[in-house]
Amino acid sequence: MDRSAEFRRWKAQCLSKADLSRKGSVDEDVVELVQLLNEREQFFTTSSCAGRIILLDGSINGFEVQKKDCCWLLVTHRPCIKDDMVAALKKANGDAILKFEPLVLHVQCRQLQDAQILAVRSTHGLEVPLSQEGKLMVTEEYIDFLLKIANQKMEENKKRIERFYNCLQHALERATVTDSHSKEKINEKNNPYSHKKKRNRAKARGKCVTEENDKELENDDDLGISVTIFPEDY
Amino acid sequence: MDRSAEFRRWKAQCLSKADLSRKGSVDEDVVELVQLLNEREQFFTTSSCAGRIILLDGSINGFEVQKKDCCWLLVTHRPCIKDDMVAALKKANGDAILKFEPLVLHVQCRQLQDAQILAVRSTHGLEVPLSQEGKLMVTEEYIDFLLKIANQKMEENKKRIERFYNCLQHALERATVTDSHSKEKINEKNNPYSHKKKRNRAKARGKCVTEENDKELENDDDLGISVTIFPEDY
Repeated sequence: MDRSAEFRRWKAQCLSKADLSRKGSVDEDVVELVQLLNEREQFFTTSSCAGRIILLDGSINGFEVQKKDCCWLLVTHRPCIKDDMVAALKKANGDAILKFEPLVLHVQCRQLQDAQILAVRSTHGLEVPLSQEGKLMVTEEYIDFLLKIANQKMEENKKRIERFYNCLQHALERATVTDSHSKEKINEKNNPYSHKKKRNRAKARGKCVTEENDKELENDDDLGISVTIFPEDY
Repeated sequence: MDRSAEFRRWKAQCLSKADLSRKGSVDEDVVELVQLLNEREQFFTTSSCAGRIILLDGSINGFEVQKKDCCWLLVTHRPCIKDDMVAALKKANGDAILKFEPLVLHVQCRQLQDAQILAVRSTHGLEVPLSQEGKLMVTEEYIDFLLKIANQKMEENKKRIERFYNCLQHALERATVTDSHSKEKINEKNNPYSHKKKRNRAKARGKCVTEENDKELENDDDLGISVTIFPEDY
């Protein structure tokens, strides 16, 4: 079987599997994005989360919440009001942590040269410890303050998903138009490293420090969604 | 010029550049790791951060701290004491945020088939808004509680860097031993997708939800550092 056929088979197999997530379905805000990718023969999505506010209760042991003893007191993909959070916090008997997690999307690609996982992630989260062994460590005023920030992030995240959808749609259209040129260009002995460098920079921006240029760090929050797209001519 | 020579030239050029980060040098805790990679002809590092506690002051506008008006009130790669944090917070006149950022490392690879950026990142951070327009929103007791968590994360992060160094060293040694086999195997028409799938799963674990299996989400904190290593036989 050639690689294209193999990829098709694997894609069909993955997409036909039952959705084993807690929710059991793709989040509403990324359904169109997931469809856009899965309609293309060269891609399929393996995981996604549109973005959410969660309250976890567990015991912080050294570094992190121990997941085995951890429960989810609240999960929402929509803005959250203080009363719901306060009510959920009353059920905490361990170390409760509020998190905001933005869009995450993993996409599998067909070609060897783009056989990386197209990992789309935004780095603008929140991770805030709120209680210790059941004792609330912050005021209700602080929870209100925190939820305003979390809800703003949720709204902005939604806008970014729409923006990303539009950019991706255009990129895929361009890729289709130029597709006939791509194979020739691969054989033209371009300097591949200039391309890699661009990709590298784009990806590196998604997070933290670069030794080369700390400006990237200072600007990383301006970029919205961090995504690696492969140049059509590579 | 062949691709190997081109890569060598590019590597030499990148590594000879002045370090433009604020700090101007590689963080002490990752010097050995960075050296280990840069000694290998097929790799070089483009950015790194060993892990740090930072206090940023800026204005939260919609989604995030506006970096242009933002200043760093405190940065440390070592455990932080409450008095230092409280003193730094007194200088805040905007919306101050405490962050813990674990190891980040970006590595460039030579081969087309491993020409992905080897992005090593751990997802166990903290991002905690502490003040609003200069007004502290939490108690000193909470700051103390938070710093205990941040300092534990710093310690655990350091252990993980050591563990990662050892694993990488072994992996590189194995790769050297099996290097002579790899070229033959590339021509053997293996099913590449089984490999990709493993890589995909390993990478996906680093963060958030998978539609396929939410268990991965629940276990993601057990994994320590999330890293993509390319199989030698691919």
